[in-house]
Amino acid sequence: MEARLGMGQCWIEKNMRLVGVRDPVRARFGQVTMDSKTWMGWRWGVPAVSQYPLQTGAMAAPGTPPPSASGGGGGEPRQLPELIRLKRDGGHLREADIRNFVHAVIDGRAQDTQIGAMLMAIRLQGMNLEETSVLTRALAESGQQLEWPKAWHQQLVDKHSTGGVGDKVSLVLAPALAACGCKVPMISGRSLGHTGGTLDKLESIPGFGVTQSPEQMLHILEEVGCCIVGQSAKLVPADGILYAARDVTATVDSVPLITASILSKKAVEGLSTLVVDVKFGGAAVFPDQEKARELAKMLVRVGVSLGLKVAAALTAMDNPLGRSVGHTLEVEEALLCLDGAGPPDLRDLVIRLGGAILWLSGQAETQDQGAARVAAALDDGSARRRFQLMLSAQGVDPGLAKALCSGSPTQRRQLLPHAREQEELLAPADGIVECVRALPLARVLHDLGAGRSRAGQPIRPGVGAEVLVDVGQCLSRGTPWLRVHLDGPALSSQQRRTLQGALVLSDRAPFKVPSPFAELVLPPTTAQP
Amino acid sequence: MEARLGMGQCWIEKNMRLVGVRDPVRARFGQVTMDSKTWMGWRWGVPAVSQYPLQTGAMAAPGTPPPSASGGGGGEPRQLPELIRLKRDGGHLREADIRNFVHAVIDGRAQDTQIGAMLMAIRLQGMNLEETSVLTRALAESGQQLEWPKAWHQQLVDKHSTGGVGDKVSLVLAPALAACGCKVPMISGRSLGHTGGTLDKLESIPGFGVTQSPEQMLHILEEVGCCIVGQSAKLVPADGILYAARDVTATVDSVPLITASILSKKAVEGLSTLVVDVKFGGAAVFPDQEKARELAKMLVRVGVSLGLKVAAALTAMDNPLGRSVGHTLEVEEALLCLDGAGPPDLRDLVIRLGGAILWLSGQAETQDQGAARVAAALDDGSARRRFQLMLSAQGVDPGLAKALCSGSPTQRRQLLPHAREQEELLAPADGIVECVRALPLARVLHDLGAGRSRAGQPIRPGVGAEVLVDVGQCLSRGTPWLRVHLDGPALSSQQRRTLQGALVLSDRAPFKVPSPFAELVLPPTTAQP
Repeated sequence: MEARLGMGQCWIEKNMRLVGVRDPVRARFGQVTMDSKTWMGWRWGVPAVSQYPLQTGAMAAPGTPPPSASGGGGGEPRQLPELIRLKRDGGHLREADIRNFVHAVIDGRAQDTQIGAMLMAIRLQGMNLEETSVLTRALAESGQQLEWPKAWHQQLVDKHSTGGVGDKVSLVLAPALAACGCKVPMISGRSLGHTGGTLDKLESIPGFGVTQSPEQMLHILEEVGCCIVGQSAKLVPADGILYAARDVTATVDSVPLITASILSKKAVEGLSTLVVDVKFGGAAVFPDQEKARELAKMLVRVGVSLGLKVAAALTAMDNPLGRSVGHTLEVEEALLCLDGAGPPDLRDLVIRLGGAILWLSGQAETQDQGAARVAAALDDGSARRRFQLMLSAQGVDPGLAKALCSGSPTQRRQLLPHAREQEELLAPADGIVECVRALPLARVLHDLGAGRSRAGQPIRPGVGAEVLVDVGQCLSRGTPWLRVHLDGPALSSQQRRTLQGALVLSDRAPFKVPSPFAELVLPPTTAQP
Repeated sequence: MEARLGMGQCWIEKNMRLVGVRDPVRARFGQVTMDSKTWMGWRWGVPAVSQYPLQTGAMAAPGTPPPSASGGGGGEPRQLPELIRLKRDGGHLREADIRNFVHAVIDGRAQDTQIGAMLMAIRLQGMNLEETSVLTRALAESGQQLEWPKAWHQQLVDKHSTGGVGDKVSLVLAPALAACGCKVPMISGRSLGHTGGTLDKLESIPGFGVTQSPEQMLHILEEVGCCIVGQSAKLVPADGILYAARDVTATVDSVPLITASILSKKAVEGLSTLVVDVKFGGAAVFPDQEKARELAKMLVRVGVSLGLKVAAALTAMDNPLGRSVGHTLEVEEALLCLDGAGPPDLRDLVIRLGGAILWLSGQAETQDQGAARVAAALDDGSARRRFQLMLSAQGVDPGLAKALCSGSPTQRRQLLPHAREQEELLAPADGIVECVRALPLARVLHDLGAGRSRAGQPIRPGVGAEVLVDVGQCLSRGTPWLRVHLDGPALSSQQRRTLQGALVLSDRAPFKVPSPFAELVLPPTTAQP
């Protein structure tokens, strides 16, 4: 086997398997010869040499398409204002148009005003399946691609969530899947707005490093089976630019833009199978379940068009998931779940999502069998063991990792940063807990320092809240129902009022905590087991 | 009378009248005491101290409204993403919202992506009369305001065009109105896209300076009665930013954005009366007359809300106006019109627009009487005399100005830069000239260097074309119908094909050149004379 490598490529030979990162931009300027049997190659038939290389040398004049952009999708490339006009008027963009736009975003030809206008035009006029699929590919191909040993293909799985309050599923599910034999190269995000970020939660554990090179990821996947890392600037750079722009331009809640953003990031992970947790409800991007289902279907269809097995779970996001919200508090609750305990809604969601992943990837015969294996990994401590190994592999002192995973809840709290003060809120009346509204709760915690208003802001890891009651339970006036952990001065009366408004009481009979899991959207050809 | 002036303010005392520039931003930091009877004061009841001062000291955090933005329009100010979301969803922006947005554009709080997204949201969702009116005011108040002696008020008039091909009306009308006793402080624009700019046409006259301070403008208005100058960065800076963004984001053809852009620039000129020439047809922003009428009505209504007398003329822009297109060629044709000659469609439009202005400002009893006075000013040489004085006052050597104005067409051509080559196109068949399509003609000339693709590009003043035939005339195969003036190599076969495609022949009977003037949209309360 021969491999002549181009500048900027990074390869590791390990255990007789070549692994590495392929960079479609730089690959163009080197020479690559490889034994295709040894390599996974490009999914979706993407050529080794990009059709749309970045400009080199002098910057092209604004509005000038890249010289090679005329290929693919038919017709001459159109200038950016023309593309924006076309989408503004509800037209369909061709493949060459979308690739031209994405390239212009990366190489700086696209002015920020043009990016904002195009995003708004897409938000208002939409994109069909084909356009969304092309956008996803173009974003995925805008940077490096992770590649893993071919033998791993079936095992390479991941889960992604559209963002919720108290959602610590990834912290539990990644090690649980690893304990079931999967390889989970999870690239996760940071807290922004009212939703928490998995990376920030993990970083509240002293020493945890979210920056891992592809070689380090490979090593961890071999030794542990899962890693949870941050997105590097080299992976999907175009999405990084568009994501930041969407956040400030009221263009987040767009089915095609969400789809392309999620799937492009997951596509470069080199997965076989992905399950997306699409939230709906009061604290979700789409409050309406119908709109969330539309997103779920688009995710599944575009996933199929990319050669990925994708399912989308529709799950309720009205109450916080579990009983804890806030970075270290959520790590503590994830550890409870890894103990085989913890709140039932969290455990239920971990098991169901994991079951779907194991089944969809062909590693379990039914979703139920898959779910049983995940449950067993939580109950027998094997998932917690993987979590401990992942912490150590990603920079946490092994002694601390062990103490965290084997300690009692009280011992764990001593090992993690915690807020200086606690304040409890009392139930203002008797009643049944109908709902603890996640959105106002998250907004107050955000104000207290648990969230970010813009990228790069520091957060207070110990700030958060424990919901002391279960949905469906009977509550008496004067009983504490919420414990707020805070660093600063006491809650303002406005904050207390907002928090008390999050508690919704009713007079109906007590009921069991409902599962947040509502439905699973599968590719059309997949027979429901 | 006492006047204590703040930093950055510039005043002139002249002939016992105070004149000057009022800067609402800087005025906040100085102390201004004045005799309100002597001053025109702010139209529209704008206070001397802006309600929305720029941030001083440290830059405010993104999304943070200016501290004073809560005043006016009711309610707390909303953050930019919220404003964009509101307009995206078809809502109405409050006064405080629009002012907050405009201030954010000027002080840099608004990211360019946000500007692009907001413009697209406005383009797609529109703005009602009140929003457009507030946006116009906010733009106008974003910079300095020109003020003139109060005694001039009724005489202060201007004309603006939405942009056409071969439109040299301003070059003729400004001095003609000055000859009729008006004061015309015309702030004009540059060539962009396929439309020519008055400033570039004038700059093809050696020595002509478009940069004139408010004090210089005052002097020229006193001595000559008209000046044609460029927009300084201090006048309507917010419009400058939005205009550049619209040009590249497919958000030009928006009724509220065009209205606010035109009227904000004209509002700071301190006018009593404005007539806007709203083009419709193949080479206009709005090809459709109905849509152009919508713009015309909005311009008139918003103008009324600002205390201006505004009328809008709907005029056809399918054929080029007159027979010449290109910078020096149009100056030559404007001089022909100032000789009392020139193409009838140009003269007709000058006279009708001028008549409307004189009537609307109360300087003529009817439009026809006004038109007759303008025609007389063209025929008796008084308008040409004002043009000559304006050229001298704006930097042209008095000898050159005189030679240009008194010389024959051949002599004039020697005095102005001209292109190196000429090429004639021959009629491909017999027929009646039904139309000479302005848009393809302008596009080829643009390619030859007569236009700009982006701000700041150099242009070739001598490049242009002379239409050698009249619309409606009988043309024989092989007769020259177009003379192209060009600097570079001969026309390409593609360019020749495009130009020949601009000539539309028919077999009906010869007809008289129609007037481009279609209708005049007046304020509702104005009785048509």
